[in-house]
Amino acid sequence: MPDKLFFASDYMEGAHPAIMKRLAETNMEHTAGYGLDEYSERAREKIRAACNAPEAAVYFLVGGTQTNATVIDALLRPWQGVVAAETGHIAVHEAGAIEFGGHKVLTLPQRDGKLCAETIACCVETYQKDDNRAHTVMPGMVYLSQPTEYGTLYSLKELEAISAVCRDADMRLYVDGARLAYALATPVNDVTLPDLARLCDAFYIGGTKCGALLGEAVVFPKRGTAPHFFTIVKQHGALLAKGRIAGIQFDALFTDGLYDAIGKTAIAAADCIRAALVEKGYNQAFVAPTNQIFVTLDPEKAKALSEKVEMGFWENLPDGRVVMRLATSWATSDGDVDALIGIL
Amino acid sequence: MPDKLFFASDYMEGAHPAIMKRLAETNMEHTAGYGLDEYSERAREKIRAACNAPEAAVYFLVGGTQTNATVIDALLRPWQGVVAAETGHIAVHEAGAIEFGGHKVLTLPQRDGKLCAETIACCVETYQKDDNRAHTVMPGMVYLSQPTEYGTLYSLKELEAISAVCRDADMRLYVDGARLAYALATPVNDVTLPDLARLCDAFYIGGTKCGALLGEAVVFPKRGTAPHFFTIVKQHGALLAKGRIAGIQFDALFTDGLYDAIGKTAIAAADCIRAALVEKGYNQAFVAPTNQIFVTLDPEKAKALSEKVEMGFWENLPDGRVVMRLATSWATSDGDVDALIGIL
Amino acid sequence: MPDKLFFASDYMEGAHPAIMKRLAETNMEHTAGYGLDEYSERAREKIRAACNAPEAAVYFLVGGTQTNATVIDALLRPWQGVVAAETGHIAVHEAGAIEFGGHKVLTLPQRDGKLCAETIACCVETYQKDDNRAHTVMPGMVYLSQPTEYGTLYSLKELEAISAVCRDADMRLYVDGARLAYALATPVNDVTLPDLARLCDAFYIGGTKCGALLGEAVVFPKRGTAPHFFTIVKQHGALLAKGRIAGIQFDALFTDGLYDAIGKTAIAAADCIRAALVEKGYNQAFVAPTNQIFVTLDPEKAKALSEKVEMGFWENLPDGRVVMRLATSWATSDGDVDALIGIL
Amino acid sequence: MPDKLFFASDYMEGAHPAIMKRLAETNMEHTAGYGLDEYSERAREKIRAACNAPEAAVYFLVGGTQTNATVIDALLRPWQGVVAAETGHIAVHEAGAIEFGGHKVLTLPQRDGKLCAETIACCVETYQKDDNRAHTVMPGMVYLSQPTEYGTLYSLKELEAISAVCRDADMRLYVDGARLAYALATPVNDVTLPDLARLCDAFYIGGTKCGALLGEAVVFPKRGTAPHFFTIVKQHGALLAKGRIAGIQFDALFTDGLYDAIGKTAIAAADCIRAALVEKGYNQAFVAPTNQIFVTLDPEKAKALSEKVEMGFWENLPDGRVVMRLATSWATSDGDVDALIGIL
Repeated sequence: MPDKLFFASDYMEGAHPAIMKRLAETNMEHTAGYGLDEYSERAREKIRAACNAPEAAVYFLVGGTQTNATVIDALLRPWQGVVAAETGHIAVHEAGAIEFGGHKVLTLPQRDGKLCAETIACCVETYQKDDNRAHTVMPGMVYLSQPTEYGTLYSLKELEAISAVCRDADMRLYVDGARLAYALATPVNDVTLPDLARLCDAFYIGGTKCGALLGEAVVFPKRGTAPHFFTIVKQHGALLAKGRIAGIQFDALFTDGLYDAIGKTAIAAADCIRAALVEKGYNQAFVAPTNQIFVTLDPEKAKALSEKVEMGFWENLPDGRVVMRLATSWATSDGDVDALIGIL
Repeated sequence: MPDKLFFASDYMEGAHPAIMKRLAETNMEHTAGYGLDEYSERAREKIRAACNAPEAAVYFLVGGTQTNATVIDALLRPWQGVVAAETGHIAVHEAGAIEFGGHKVLTLPQRDGKLCAETIACCVETYQKDDNRAHTVMPGMVYLSQPTEYGTLYSLKELEAISAVCRDADMRLYVDGARLAYALATPVNDVTLPDLARLCDAFYIGGTKCGALLGEAVVFPKRGTAPHFFTIVKQHGALLAKGRIAGIQFDALFTDGLYDAIGKTAIAAADCIRAALVEKGYNQAFVAPTNQIFVTLDPEKAKALSEKVEMGFWENLPDGRVVMRLATSWATSDGDVDALIGIL
Repeated sequence: MPDKLFFASDYMEGAHPAIMKRLAETNMEHTAGYGLDEYSERAREKIRAACNAPEAAVYFLVGGTQTNATVIDALLRPWQGVVAAETGHIAVHEAGAIEFGGHKVLTLPQRDGKLCAETIACCVETYQKDDNRAHTVMPGMVYLSQPTEYGTLYSLKELEAISAVCRDADMRLYVDGARLAYALATPVNDVTLPDLARLCDAFYIGGTKCGALLGEAVVFPKRGTAPHFFTIVKQHGALLAKGRIAGIQFDALFTDGLYDAIGKTAIAAADCIRAALVEKGYNQAFVAPTNQIFVTLDPEKAKALSEKVEMGFWENLPDGRVVMRLATSWATSDGDVDALIGIL
Repeated sequence: MPDKLFFASDYMEGAHPAIMKRLAETNMEHTAGYGLDEYSERAREKIRAACNAPEAAVYFLVGGTQTNATVIDALLRPWQGVVAAETGHIAVHEAGAIEFGGHKVLTLPQRDGKLCAETIACCVETYQKDDNRAHTVMPGMVYLSQPTEYGTLYSLKELEAISAVCRDADMRLYVDGARLAYALATPVNDVTLPDLARLCDAFYIGGTKCGALLGEAVVFPKRGTAPHFFTIVKQHGALLAKGRIAGIQFDALFTDGLYDAIGKTAIAAADCIRAALVEKGYNQAFVAPTNQIFVTLDPEKAKALSEKVEMGFWENLPDGRVVMRLATSWATSDGDVDALIGIL
């Protein structure tokens, strides 16, 4: 790996140096366990403020699949399933963790990785009009991710429309924000943390893929949304004994604009690369404005480039070309970007 | 908390400084995710060597309840349950995580927190002789912890006897080593890592309570014991994206005898305190030779002591006295011990 | 089997002739499926009337373990477990069906097969006072059976006390009435169907062991107790396609006092046998007033008797004697009883 | 309902008179419970003979969803899911029973309700080639139904091809035969019971929809396929206490060709109706050769017809027409068919 440029992923380093510094500074302190410490509480307060949700219940879990499985299990009743895009992370890449918890993932067609309000409304209507609906799984929640698996974004208008469908149908809306920092920092994005708090029943602010060693901050904007959630977290094996490890990191991420800065660094880098790709006549597989760039290459070109640049393989196209993913992060330097553009 | 002596728990600091140093040194490296990095592999090799189990499959998970639930689910078949002491952690303090995975915990009477081979053999025999056994849960695994919930230890002879019962009955033997460092470092202990590897189907070497920020190393001494365990780990939400965070820590713990040293520091401190307690005429509730000391106190005495020393409450006795727990760790200094003895 | 007297069990025949007659009479009719037919509705109305619970929701399931697993799963939330006597059917003889549904059975000591209100209150108090209760399973329901596994009965006073504990602690009370007909027909019994409806959140009226081919009638006295129960029944594989098969049987059982008559026949027979046993100096292992008689015998005596009478083996006593079970049913004739007494 | 012709469904009567007769004749006998009686054993022997599978393990369960959930749970390991057509019963109409058991249903596109071997092979290949396959659910079983949800049939060649794909990929093949009698009796069908036994790891012979009151016969052609299946059945709440109720029915169904006769009566009736529909210029929505006929009607025509004939609503077409289902059964008389044709 040493001599290659690294654009393979956004979570292959450790943590942002500001986070490591705080972990080191607090290392020898004794605090309460299981997230009951003051750092975790401080992080919760900062997240509540950032979300303009003073009543929000905030919990720190360890990773994304775990968070999705735990929140979905906490919010669904036994007769309900969770609606997701057929490309959604919970539908494809979580090894059946949702089903392990006893719930069906009800997949719907997507466009650019996104669900649309009409498709969801149609699914709800089909359920409600079905004479045999008592023999089927009730759609009880909608799962989205922002950004999506394809790096695309829901606009505020789209999210409002989906939220309205959910409220009309008494369904929960849950947003997976594994890469939320990158969404928030994208210039065309118009969905803020307070918007998420206003429109969702639950969402999580990703740490692992946004500069933390690990950790995801689950936000339930309304108190009482998920009763006994602490116990459910424990039951799912998701309770961190030294809960402050996550708390300290989120405290740092929400201090002095670090979470924003992490996102902006990555987006600025990705925008430079996208501009260079356009200028040099490369094709992009999806119009993704966030920190992931999906470039379509001839196999030879892909191979040649891979010798100098660590990239992620995305998929083979029917025409023989391949889609490769370049991801930027808080750790992407200007020098890396310039070097990559030089190679391109 | 500032001015009090801290003996409340063994996992309320961050990590041992040697671990923090390694995390800092490697922080900006790019490595593969999900435990496929070279640090994790190096840690695996060191653990295999320490266990004298060159074929062992080793996995790093995050926490104790998660590890128990995942390993038990991986090794049991649907018609089987796990045998545990009625005081066992999985039976009492894991919020039903084993049952969430679909398995019954079959509790048996304990003595000093321990199961004995005869009790297990009797349970197996009862099952096997039961005409209605097809209507009941088959004991498919024995769960122990070393040390136990009461800080006591299985002797090698006891463990060999239990292992023999398990093998005769085609049951798995699994040892929860959340505090294994303290067991290994106790002078009277005669159960080594190679013994565990020889006698068990699975065990875990605890990190969280033995100096790490987080992390537990699951060891399956024989390859093939838990097919598709990686996927089961993912399904349980227990797969760490930045797997190296655990790998680096276990690499450090198994370098230059750090894991041994951590245990020895704690046991030496505990032994000093126990000697002082005996000398000063205190009663201990259990004969526990490891890093936890259970002292029986009058309520007034307990209250007075608690003003100067952070201790853990264990239980109220019928006679009005209380049992308080003092725990030592790698972070307990000679000065702390001297100060505590002075107060006693 | 031909020449032996049959006292081995109360559910080894088919159905009471009055039930077979109704099944034959209605056989060629076309009705709606899944319990939406008029016979099922008629049976529901009769059960509501018998229970003095005009608002009750009534469902027909197939068997006892299935009913227990389905009702318990429907009424518990994920963080809750079900309290049962350590001898309770769900704790011992249901092959882990409750745990398969994700819930822990919290066992308590019993006396004569019964839980007492104080024991339950103590369990609740222990939970509520536990500082670590968020790490444990909350008792969310009490499971009893009437009669118990030992053929004993809760008195009205005992049941009222348990019900009061449950309501104070916001726990559900559920009564398994697999053999309820025999309880209701026992002279010393003072717990009626309206009492059960008044004191419980759910109970079932057993059909399989009380004269039906199959079928158990679940009663939720208050509407809204178990939302979407139909779908949960389907999800548990417990929904009978030809639901009327159960409905017709319960319609028959609650017509012209058949359910009472079935119980009375069995109890009268059992009382005769018990009187004869006392007179002849036999020992009974438990004081069980219902249709099961537990007689303690020397092994030789047991063997000799077994050549003439089909009995059930219950258990070996430490002193070498055995406990055998004699069960009476609606199908036990006066001639059978006389013949048995003759043999005794 | 009285004056209308009944073609709404094939399971809205009770049982075939020959079955009712046997239940009545055996009603007062005492037999062992839980399927250990001689009638069940006799039925097993007859099924083994009919399947040319002398070693087959045969179990009697109660209903279709229950059988599917129990068999799938018994044959899959935790990391595996079951492949089904997106229209498959387990994917759509079982209220999430498969997911309740912890397994994902992996849906694939269908044609006329059928999966094809190439589609399955492609799904397997995608899994096997996926670098991230350890993060996804492994296809561990293929679920088919014969006939399908659309009343269509797999040919022997198609089934052989699918079986070959399954064996190459070490996947189980399971066939849901809820309406198997109708498949077996269809003239174009070339898949026999011995073929199913030769090509599948498990299948069930439907009783409920083929003349029984209830009951499905699960066949595992090779012994050892599903270890401890009895206990898994119990755990799923699927064990019938009076197991003989199912055994007697299957004994009757496999005596003197009753199962064949039931199928033939229904198919002969359906063929007459289909011929009349063609002659009279009606459109059929699918080419279904079994006992279900899917006729496309203008809404007015459908309404008019529904006043005289009880039919099942199937779906609304985009062009405003509706698809109605006519189902024949063992209970469909020549007079009913003639009357229906008259009305058409």
